[in-house]
Amino acid sequence: MASTSTVSPLAPKNVPDMPAIAGVTLATAAAGIKYQNRTDVLMALFDPGTTVAGVFTRSKCPSAPVEWCRAKVKGGKARALVVNSGNANAFTGKTGRAAVTFTAALASKAAGCKASEIFLASTGVIGEPLKATQFTGVMDGLVRRAVPKAFHEAAKAIMTTDTFAKVATATAKLGKAKVTINGIAKGAGMIAPDMATMLSFVFTDAPIAAPALQKILSETVIDTFNAVTIDGDTSTSDTLLAFATGQAAKNGAPKISKASDVRLKDFRKAFARVLGDLAEQVARDGEGARKLVEIVVEGAVSKPSARRIAMSIANSPLVKTAIAGEDANWGRVVMAVGKAGEPADRDKLSIWFGGIRVAHKGARDPGYDEAVVSAAMKKPEISLKVHLGLGRGRDRVLTCDLTKEYIAINGDYRS
Amino acid sequence: MASTSTVSPLAPKNVPDMPAIAGVTLATAAAGIKYQNRTDVLMALFDPGTTVAGVFTRSKCPSAPVEWCRAKVKGGKARALVVNSGNANAFTGKTGRAAVTFTAALASKAAGCKASEIFLASTGVIGEPLKATQFTGVMDGLVRRAVPKAFHEAAKAIMTTDTFAKVATATAKLGKAKVTINGIAKGAGMIAPDMATMLSFVFTDAPIAAPALQKILSETVIDTFNAVTIDGDTSTSDTLLAFATGQAAKNGAPKISKASDVRLKDFRKAFARVLGDLAEQVARDGEGARKLVEIVVEGAVSKPSARRIAMSIANSPLVKTAIAGEDANWGRVVMAVGKAGEPADRDKLSIWFGGIRVAHKGARDPGYDEAVVSAAMKKPEISLKVHLGLGRGRDRVLTCDLTKEYIAINGDYRS
Repeated sequence: MASTSTVSPLAPKNVPDMPAIAGVTLATAAAGIKYQNRTDVLMALFDPGTTVAGVFTRSKCPSAPVEWCRAKVKGGKARALVVNSGNANAFTGKTGRAAVTFTAALASKAAGCKASEIFLASTGVIGEPLKATQFTGVMDGLVRRAVPKAFHEAAKAIMTTDTFAKVATATAKLGKAKVTINGIAKGAGMIAPDMATMLSFVFTDAPIAAPALQKILSETVIDTFNAVTIDGDTSTSDTLLAFATGQAAKNGAPKISKASDVRLKDFRKAFARVLGDLAEQVARDGEGARKLVEIVVEGAVSKPSARRIAMSIANSPLVKTAIAGEDANWGRVVMAVGKAGEPADRDKLSIWFGGIRVAHKGARDPGYDEAVVSAAMKKPEISLKVHLGLGRGRDRVLTCDLTKEYIAINGDYRS
Repeated sequence: MASTSTVSPLAPKNVPDMPAIAGVTLATAAAGIKYQNRTDVLMALFDPGTTVAGVFTRSKCPSAPVEWCRAKVKGGKARALVVNSGNANAFTGKTGRAAVTFTAALASKAAGCKASEIFLASTGVIGEPLKATQFTGVMDGLVRRAVPKAFHEAAKAIMTTDTFAKVATATAKLGKAKVTINGIAKGAGMIAPDMATMLSFVFTDAPIAAPALQKILSETVIDTFNAVTIDGDTSTSDTLLAFATGQAAKNGAPKISKASDVRLKDFRKAFARVLGDLAEQVARDGEGARKLVEIVVEGAVSKPSARRIAMSIANSPLVKTAIAGEDANWGRVVMAVGKAGEPADRDKLSIWFGGIRVAHKGARDPGYDEAVVSAAMKKPEISLKVHLGLGRGRDRVLTCDLTKEYIAINGDYRS
C-alpha cells in the first residue's frame, strides 16, 4: 500500500487561525470506516435559516452522495453536513443509495431537522459498500460535541492521502458589517490507492439567499477550482458546497437576495480569495508534486480558448515530466499548444519559463541562455507563460509536475 | 540523457522477412545529424508513375516537413522519400522552411526528378535548427547505393528512442495478380529527451491512383494508427505516407482509379493488416511500457462515442498506473468513462479485465475473485473491456501502461 508520510514541500508555510463563523459548529469522530487511529467523520451543524449552494463533478458516473446533494441543493436550505473519509460510496449501486438515505435519516434525527436539509459527502475507496451503520455509534456524540472553532480538525478528518490539511479564511465588508468566510478542502489524493476526490466546504455568516449564493459559487469556481488540474482525471465525487448562515444580519449585514447586488463586491472578492487559496493548496498537494506550476496563456482569441490551451499544457505528461526534470522544454509546450485544437500560429508563439523568454515568434529566443533558464527551473514554483499573438484572450490554471512518486502512489497494488 | 538500451519486453517475437516491392529501392546513411555511429538518413526511390497519399498530425503547430508534405501530396506523384532522425525540424521558423527547400532541391537533383515529387520527414529534437547541409555529402551516395530489399535497414535509420525496428508486410490479390504491401514505422520515442514523433511509410506495387490511395489511407488510419495512444500527447511531426509504384500492372494487376472499386477488397484487408501491425508495434514500444493494453468499449450509443470513451480510459494516468501496478482497478475505469462526457449510465456498466468480469450493472461483480483477477493482471498483454449497455456502438484502441520508466525517460534533462 502506498503511503505518503511526508508533508509536501509545497505546503503553505503559514497556516491561518480559523475564526468562528456565527451559526456554524463542528465536530469530528473516528468511526473506523477504513482508517485506524484517526478521525474520519466530520459533522457541521448550521443554525436555522442557513442557505446552501453547490457545484459537483461533471462525471457521468457520479457517486451516490453527489446525486443526493445535487437533488437536495435545489431546496436551498441546510442544517447539517456529514462527510466521511475512507470510502467514497461510489459505484456501489443500490447499496450506495441505501447508505446515503440511512446516513441522512440518522443525521436528521440527531440534528433535529429534515433529511432534505442534510448534505453528505464521501471520499476514499470506490466500489466498496459503505457500511453506514458505523455512523450510528458516533452521530449523537458529534451533535453533542460540536463547537464553533474546529475548522482545522474538520479539514483533518476529511483527508485521504493529502499530506496537509487545507484551510483558508477571509473577511469582507457587507454593508457596514464585517462578514467572515471560512473554507476547508481535501485534494487529489488516492486512497490505498483508489479514486481521487476533491471535496471542499465553504462557510459564511453572510445573509445571502440560496439562488444568489449558487450564482456566486458557480461563477467563482470557474477561475479557482476549475482552473486546477493534477492529472486530468475527474473524480466521481467532486463536491463543493457553500453554506451561508445569515447570522451577520444581527450585526447589521444587509440581506442579499440577488447575485447582482452591488453591495456584494467586497464579499465576492473575499469569497474568490478563499476558493482560490484552497484550490492552490490542492495543486500544492498533488500526488508526488515537487513543483507548483502556474500556466498563463495570453494573446488567445478568447478566454475559453486560452483555458483550453492552458489545460492542454497542464495535462500534458510530457510537459509535466519535463518540469519534474527541471527542463525548460518549450518544444513540448509547442506540442501541447498544437494539440489543443484551438487557433494558434506557430510563427507567432512566444514562451516564457519563470519570467524568462525562451522562444519567440516560432523559434528559440535569440537571447536564450541555458544557465539562466536552468536556475529558474530549480525553484519550487514555476510560472510558464505562452503568448499566442492572436487576440486578447487570457487565462491561468494551476497544476503540478509529474514525478516517479505519482506512479509509486498510484501504481502500487490496492491491498 | 535518458537512454533505453534494452529492447521492450513487448517486442514482437517474430520479425518478418521483408520482400522487395517492384519500383522501390532504399538506402541509408550516417549523416551525423545528432547520433554518432549509426544511420540517421533514409532515402527511398520510386519508379516513375508512383502515386502517393498521406495523413499528418492534427497539431496546429506542425513541423516544416509536415507543411511541405501536406502541400506536395496534393500533386499525387512521388519519386523519392528522404527521412532523417536526430532532428525534427519543428518550431525552427524560417530556418526550418529553408532546410526543407534545400533538402528537397538536393534530393531532386540526385534523384533526377522535380522537387515537388520529393517527400520529407524528420524526427528528433525540436526547436534546434536542422543543418540540412549535412545531407550534401550523403545524397548522391544514397541514390547510387539504393537496393530493393533494405526495409529492415530503413526502419533502423528512422528510430529515435524506439527500442526495436518496426516492419510489417502482407500480400493481397488484386485481380488475378499478387501485390505486396510493406510498411515501416517509428514510435512514440523521445529524444534526449525531446519531442515524440510517429512516422510511418507504406509501400506497395499495386497500381492505385493517388485519390483512391488517399481515400483508402484516410479510412484505414482510423482504426489503426489513430486508435493508438501512448500518453495523449500529439506530436508536431506525425506523418504517414503511402506510396504505390503500380509495377504490379506488369503482372496483370488492374489499374485502380476509385477507392470504391470492389476489386480492392483483399488489398484493403492486407493494407489494414500492415497498418494495424505497425500501430500495435508502436504501442508495444511506448516509452517505459511493460504492458500492452487493448481497450474495447461495447454497448455505446455509437462508434465515435465508444472511441471517445476508449480514449478517455487509454489516456487516464490513473488507469495506466493501475495497470502498471497489475491492479484491476475498475473504479478508475468508471472514473474515466464518467469523465469522457459521453452518454453513460453508471448502473448499466460492466467491466472486464483479461476476460474476467469484475463489475456488473454498477457494482462489483458478485462472483469477483481477487486471486483469479490478479493472475490475469500479471500477463504482459491485458484486455480491458467496458460494456455500457446503451446501444451497439463498439470500438477498440491500444495503449500501454504508465511506469516510472516513462518518467525517467521524459523527466531527465535534455543535455
